[in-house]
Amino acid sequence: DKTVKLAVIAGDGIGPEVIAEAEKVLDAATAGSGILFEKTRFALGAARFLETGDTLTDEDLTAIKSHDAILLGAVGGVPGDARLKNANIERGLLLKLRFELDHYVNLRPSKLYPGAPGPLAAPGDIDFVVVREGTEGPYVGNGGSIRRGTPHEIANETSVNTAFGVERVVRYAFDLAERRRKKLTLVHKTNVLVHAGAIWQRIVDEVAREHPHVAVDYLHVDAATIFLVTNPGRFDVIVTDNLFGDILTDLAGAVTGGIGLAASGNINPDGAFPSMFEPVHGSAPDIAGQQKADPTAAILSIALLLDHLGLREESARVTRAAEDDIAARDGAARTTAQIGDSIASRVRA
Amino acid sequence: DKTVKLAVIAGDGIGPEVIAEAEKVLDAATAGSGILFEKTRFALGAARFLETGDTLTDEDLTAIKSHDAILLGAVGGVPGDARLKNANIERGLLLKLRFELDHYVNLRPSKLYPGAPGPLAAPGDIDFVVVREGTEGPYVGNGGSIRRGTPHEIANETSVNTAFGVERVVRYAFDLAERRRKKLTLVHKTNVLVHAGAIWQRIVDEVAREHPHVAVDYLHVDAATIFLVTNPGRFDVIVTDNLFGDILTDLAGAVTGGIGLAASGNINPDGAFPSMFEPVHGSAPDIAGQQKADPTAAILSIALLLDHLGLREESARVTRAAEDDIAARDGAARTTAQIGDSIASRVRA
Ligand SMILES: CC(C)[C@H](C(=O)O)[C@@H](O)C(=O)O
Ligand SMILES: CC(C)[C@H](C(=O)O)[C@@H](O)C(=O)O
Repeated sequence: DKTVKLAVIAGDGIGPEVIAEAEKVLDAATAGSGILFEKTRFALGAARFLETGDTLTDEDLTAIKSHDAILLGAVGGVPGDARLKNANIERGLLLKLRFELDHYVNLRPSKLYPGAPGPLAAPGDIDFVVVREGTEGPYVGNGGSIRRGTPHEIANETSVNTAFGVERVVRYAFDLAERRRKKLTLVHKTNVLVHAGAIWQRIVDEVAREHPHVAVDYLHVDAATIFLVTNPGRFDVIVTDNLFGDILTDLAGAVTGGIGLAASGNINPDGAFPSMFEPVHGSAPDIAGQQKADPTAAILSIALLLDHLGLREESARVTRAAEDDIAARDGAARTTAQIGDSIASRVRA
Repeated sequence: DKTVKLAVIAGDGIGPEVIAEAEKVLDAATAGSGILFEKTRFALGAARFLETGDTLTDEDLTAIKSHDAILLGAVGGVPGDARLKNANIERGLLLKLRFELDHYVNLRPSKLYPGAPGPLAAPGDIDFVVVREGTEGPYVGNGGSIRRGTPHEIANETSVNTAFGVERVVRYAFDLAERRRKKLTLVHKTNVLVHAGAIWQRIVDEVAREHPHVAVDYLHVDAATIFLVTNPGRFDVIVTDNLFGDILTDLAGAVTGGIGLAASGNINPDGAFPSMFEPVHGSAPDIAGQQKADPTAAILSIALLLDHLGLREESARVTRAAEDDIAARDGAARTTAQIGDSIASRVRA
């Protein structure tokens, strides 16, 4: 039997609820397959910080690195909680994991599943993947301020973009486009961010030459948001930087029926570090513990995890089960566990 | 009689067509009012660059500064035109005007006019204004690259945010909120861009204390894009930085029936420099000269111009005429001039 060491970070808010369902589905999909998921639970997030003052210790990080993959729910406390004022769980935990584990591909598929209620009157067929760079750009934390708190304060943030970092994610995106509908759209803001824009454009142009069958186009980020609501069907693979990818994928989640369905993988394709799978949504403390959260995004993240581990058939079964469940929805309220149970039983069927 | 010196930059692509209609409507709205618009035409844009190699000379700038206001159509050549490779009309002309004329308020109202076709199935009432900072942030052009064109290239872009610059635009936004539904939303990405985010949050908190009747909230930019498609009615005044404002206003234009209706003002509220009014859309070279462009965004920019000049009644007449025209649309194709004529005759009525 093969053993997969899985680090589970359920996190805060609705994290534990959606992860419980994701684990149900993982168990259902791999039962009898001869693959054993050996889970280690890591208590990380706002709750841990409030208890111990720690966000992510060196020991946590070392322990997590010894796993094959990571499943993460959501992290982050109640907005405005004064005790978290200086915590920044996002930077100290979530982004730290992405950076330390060199998750340079942030993979975010968007699909309008039949039956999913979306906000668009005429959405058309939506099925694209955003390949968001995960370790550079405006996210590097290369900022600072002087004369803080005074009328003379100046606060800077520097976006850092390297040929090394851009090329590897662009290559990943082209490879993905080759396996899909062979269309790749670079999204940036080259007319304003001329230096960062130029390195992205240059590298896309260069790698494009190795992929003559992939049709390549370019959109400014502002124009891309327009197309996401007026003609999302035009996209196949979008490659973009860390910040633009953040913005586009939340919008993409919204137009495809809500952030409750949007899955993501933070991937280190080299395999040097464990990749991490998480729903795009946050911890939503306002509905936590009420069984109101939709676990589908977490469950679809399981499908990405299984695919990443090479368990393609198991992955496809999870995706199909989730799709079938979505198609069968009639608007009646279900608990988080009811949705998880329904998908798990479809996986077993 | 009062004379207003108006600089007109029709620009490229559809610019001249939509500006012709905007001028018709301006003339109609001010005929017999005793206000004389003395127009100077500036040939600026890609066409001028191709002819002379100049983008915006010191003489141009000095001449423009001697005017009371500026009306701009759209600038920018055909994408991919090799002769424009090193031009960057956007930075060298449009952004240069905004920066040199200290247009620190980029005012972009979004309204779903009755009858306007939008992409949302259930848009609700949409009526908000984005107050976008216009002279700082990631737009400052503070970037560079080393080892350009090599596998070791590093390209940086620095977002610069000053207390001076943030406070003045935040104050403008609060004053506007006082005159509207008294709700202000700060949009940023404070959890990631911690330094730039902190200065915005601090100043909004401080100015909020002087406006106890304005309800203030905060959204991360990614979440804001979700609300723009799921619940745009929640917004009244949005205040945000230069880049986030660029993205949100294109998206806002799309959800309110298309960028053909979105007007904007680049305002220097101090009056030290002329303010500039322009449609949010670009030069759309693909449909230029075909009378296919919708001049409504340019015409609604005239309403903003008139309002800025204190001609409130004339402004309201233009807005009403455009709204009436939109409400009467039945989907039949009309030329740019037909739309302009229709709105101009409604203004006169
Ligand atoms: C929580 C935040 C740091 C994060 C991001 O900006 O990447 C989130 O929005 C996401 O998209 O995963
Ligand atoms: C053309 C471009 C420089 C400009 C901007 O980014 O501000 C445009 O998109 C706008 O919104 O007016």
